[in-house]
Amino acid sequence: MNHQSALTAYIAAFVAELVHAGIKDVVVSPGSRSTPMAMVMAEHPGLNLHIHVDERSAAFFALGIAKATGKPAAILCTSGTAAANYFPAIVEARYSRVPLLVLTADRPHELRDVGAPQAIDQIDLYGKHVKWFNEMALPEEAADMIRYVRTVCARAASVAIQAPAGPVHLNFPFREPLIPDLENDRLFELPERAEGYVSVQVGSRTLAKEDFERIAAVLEKHEKGIIVCGQLGNKEFAGKVEQLAEALGYPVLADPLSQLRSATNPGDWIVDAYDAFLRFEEAKSILKPEVVIRFGAMPVSKALGIFLKENRNALQFVVDGGGGWLDPHALSTEMVYCDEALFCEGLLQHIQGRQGSGFSDRWLKMNGLAKAAMEAEMNRDELNESFVFRQLSELLPEGASLFVGNSMPIRDLDSFFWKTNKRIKVMANRGANGIDGVTSSALGASLYAAPMYLVLGDLTFFHDMNGLIAAKQYGLDLTVILINNNGGGIFSFLPQSGQAKNFERLFGTPLGLDYSHVVEMYGGKFSRVENWLQFNESIELAKEEPGLKVIEVVTDREANAADHRRLWKAVSREINKFMDMEK
Amino acid sequence: MNHQSALTAYIAAFVAELVHAGIKDVVVSPGSRSTPMAMVMAEHPGLNLHIHVDERSAAFFALGIAKATGKPAAILCTSGTAAANYFPAIVEARYSRVPLLVLTADRPHELRDVGAPQAIDQIDLYGKHVKWFNEMALPEEAADMIRYVRTVCARAASVAIQAPAGPVHLNFPFREPLIPDLENDRLFELPERAEGYVSVQVGSRTLAKEDFERIAAVLEKHEKGIIVCGQLGNKEFAGKVEQLAEALGYPVLADPLSQLRSATNPGDWIVDAYDAFLRFEEAKSILKPEVVIRFGAMPVSKALGIFLKENRNALQFVVDGGGGWLDPHALSTEMVYCDEALFCEGLLQHIQGRQGSGFSDRWLKMNGLAKAAMEAEMNRDELNESFVFRQLSELLPEGASLFVGNSMPIRDLDSFFWKTNKRIKVMANRGANGIDGVTSSALGASLYAAPMYLVLGDLTFFHDMNGLIAAKQYGLDLTVILINNNGGGIFSFLPQSGQAKNFERLFGTPLGLDYSHVVEMYGGKFSRVENWLQFNESIELAKEEPGLKVIEVVTDREANAADHRRLWKAVSREINKFMDMEK
Repeated sequence: MNHQSALTAYIAAFVAELVHAGIKDVVVSPGSRSTPMAMVMAEHPGLNLHIHVDERSAAFFALGIAKATGKPAAILCTSGTAAANYFPAIVEARYSRVPLLVLTADRPHELRDVGAPQAIDQIDLYGKHVKWFNEMALPEEAADMIRYVRTVCARAASVAIQAPAGPVHLNFPFREPLIPDLENDRLFELPERAEGYVSVQVGSRTLAKEDFERIAAVLEKHEKGIIVCGQLGNKEFAGKVEQLAEALGYPVLADPLSQLRSATNPGDWIVDAYDAFLRFEEAKSILKPEVVIRFGAMPVSKALGIFLKENRNALQFVVDGGGGWLDPHALSTEMVYCDEALFCEGLLQHIQGRQGSGFSDRWLKMNGLAKAAMEAEMNRDELNESFVFRQLSELLPEGASLFVGNSMPIRDLDSFFWKTNKRIKVMANRGANGIDGVTSSALGASLYAAPMYLVLGDLTFFHDMNGLIAAKQYGLDLTVILINNNGGGIFSFLPQSGQAKNFERLFGTPLGLDYSHVVEMYGGKFSRVENWLQFNESIELAKEEPGLKVIEVVTDREANAADHRRLWKAVSREINKFMDMEK
Repeated sequence: MNHQSALTAYIAAFVAELVHAGIKDVVVSPGSRSTPMAMVMAEHPGLNLHIHVDERSAAFFALGIAKATGKPAAILCTSGTAAANYFPAIVEARYSRVPLLVLTADRPHELRDVGAPQAIDQIDLYGKHVKWFNEMALPEEAADMIRYVRTVCARAASVAIQAPAGPVHLNFPFREPLIPDLENDRLFELPERAEGYVSVQVGSRTLAKEDFERIAAVLEKHEKGIIVCGQLGNKEFAGKVEQLAEALGYPVLADPLSQLRSATNPGDWIVDAYDAFLRFEEAKSILKPEVVIRFGAMPVSKALGIFLKENRNALQFVVDGGGGWLDPHALSTEMVYCDEALFCEGLLQHIQGRQGSGFSDRWLKMNGLAKAAMEAEMNRDELNESFVFRQLSELLPEGASLFVGNSMPIRDLDSFFWKTNKRIKVMANRGANGIDGVTSSALGASLYAAPMYLVLGDLTFFHDMNGLIAAKQYGLDLTVILINNNGGGIFSFLPQSGQAKNFERLFGTPLGLDYSHVVEMYGGKFSRVENWLQFNESIELAKEEPGLKVIEVVTDREANAADHRRLWKAVSREINKFMDMEK
């Protein structure tokens, strides 16, 4: 067997099948052991290769691509700690159900666990955080082995996208010499089944007719119901759930990541300010549901979580096409493993329809007055964090994408980014809610979800500054709204903020960095805005200008906590007025 | 049971025991779930807390501390991907045998795998890459549970330092509320065994007298022997191995990380230029050993590795106090699990002594002429990578530490940093040879190994730029020699450099960054030197100036490869002259 010929044929077959399996993007981190795979990939006209030196950012970049496309993106690195740097993004992919194909090069068996350089134990490297791990055979060119490598590829891609989608890891041992033979013009010509070895038809879970009938009957008995929608990858879902809401007369509590707040849907049943009014007993006392139907991840709002916990005797249907157990407070009475769109469709066939109710009216009324109260109270004079999100729903263009950092920004988005008729794709890394890799995720997503706007805090920006290299190297367009409160703003809302001792050191953690330096290094445009006029102008300017634009909004953590308290107080006042009138 | 009282007592007992177990440094990354541990740790006067927002850099910072002290350093983070960011440093710690105590906060059992925010599966998170994983009990204050948490702490610290040293992971589930009671003045007063619950006596492996006699007899039969020393943590070893070399008349091939090249030891038997002359058949033909004694990790030199492989019929003793299998080429005839210093001592008792030999003379002669040839040929006119290391052995002050990046710098160090009588501690991350976390490792080590000099390439510098935040926040002193060849210089030495197609894109990967921006952001001093005079001056200036200093040496990758080839050619010429004279 000729080593180079086997290496080339085996890898070329894998790469050709990768393209047939629908994978278009590979993020490659340079290294020696991965040489043959990288060189063969670079030859395939159907693959976009993105080179990224920092594997942590590289993996998040791929995660962003996969989030935006719904298709697996692949990552490739050499052996050693390079592969360990993928771990944070893999964990995020698992919990946010994003398909990812992790390809790691490895030393061959005889060089493992014997002190060879850059050799670590890569078998099951990511443990339970990948859906499937496969240790690949050494390259061979026998027909059976070409079949093998192609079927593993097709299978890996299908495992990654099957609900719940997630990461898959293939570990490739390669022996030296590592240079493939690229002289062959027919590198990717496949000897059999030229259009792909095996295509995988992935069905969706659905229920039997009797199940739909039974559940429909239960729901029709209860007028007091709510639908709760968290983050969900199901594209068919948004349209269907509003039809279901209409039919049942149930309000839809829509997390910003449900996409229901930023779509051309009518939105008559959408409740988007629950995070504000569910903070108050008076409101909660008249909104108690008898039935809850939950779709997707748990919503961001802590107030909503507490409200659901308080109404623990309600029937709760948790619908999950991915067959997980998304029920942190152990509230579900029925766990329903059914594709979310099919669930809505199925029920709609068996529901007579209702004309709303006093119960749903109260929800929608409460929602309206909470928004009006906040709208009236918002600080339009000085820069502050809450109004940023209110402004963005005005300023972002139709069709834009908005990537939001964890910690405070996602919560502020939840509180202050209300239903708009513009189609705005809202994204965040809510699998594990980390502050890592956010910039890279947004940059990756920007390839397929332009124009991309990213709002994040300074610690999150700091964590993934290396991610900005992709913007420079590939001239990507990204507008960053950097909310710089010099540290961890969310801790000002937690109990430890009362303890002055060590607070700044352990939790506030001010870094005191002037990020204009780093933006300049990456060839971006930095502007630190002083007021709302400048903020608006910068956003408008950014629309015209290509490349990386960073708009810094400097805020104060304590003032921000006070600002939020003032807004909640305004909501509370309006609720009390409403309650008095109702009496 | 009072929740806060139990939380406080349990954690305080753990922290008190941590200090008794010899742990002085904890690198803390801010987060919510880890609040009680962080707040209690901050109260203990015996602990140095280092706050680091980026967990990847934080873990490498701790690795550096542990490398410099030989004692475990601890890292603490919150739940979620924060913990996944520790993975690269943990992998490095495992393979470089550095003790590390990994403390992760976690959600309690009822919030796991149910879609709760920031909850990931942390059980066995690092798989086989930690020596011990322990899922801790929930905090309780019963006497038995206080005993439990203290013994686990003592045990974890001892597991981390037992040969082979390595990382240990303790996962702490904490329930809300997370605020401990710090009002108690006697927080760390322990109810029993106030000086620590259990101290662990860790013995070292040694052989029986008969084994030493037998091995000594074998060695005395063979005049043609060499000793090979790679990286090794054993502090007693350096002195002993030179005595053994003297007694056996065996030259010592000393990797720079063996510390034998930079110590006040006489060094009569030290061979430090083998990487140069073992590239040539003529030299290798007269240096064939019958016996090889190897200590520590495989040396950096590829030429040496090939030489050993070619002499695969030699008896090879691989001595490893850590009981591993550091033998990538499967050459050992005897694997000897014995503390390396005790091995030398034990043999010395049974060896008569030899006066050297023609064989050892040839090795030492060859070593001298190779160095003379390179010394004469080095380019002192223009900046180049090889001469940097030659210069550093002159310029670094007595007692300095030198941290070296992987890829090219460690290889150039091996080639051009020869025996000096100055005590210079040479360090590198050679467990998995990653380009990640090097700056953080050097900064962590600088706390206990000052003054610290760091030499690294631009990709390695890029990978861990976030690590520089520690220099700013803690005013650490570090002199960085940044060899900027705008990309991956090592690939110019690999076969793919012949393939022009895609080479720069996949392997060269020029980032084109002006690092002065980032150095300025972190409050450091940046100087780009144009010639050797400026280089020398900058090093001298850096000695006086506190803080972060980055001295950039701009080189060209192709010129560098050519420069190396010129030096090897000069060595080859001298070898040939010598061989002609010998004939």
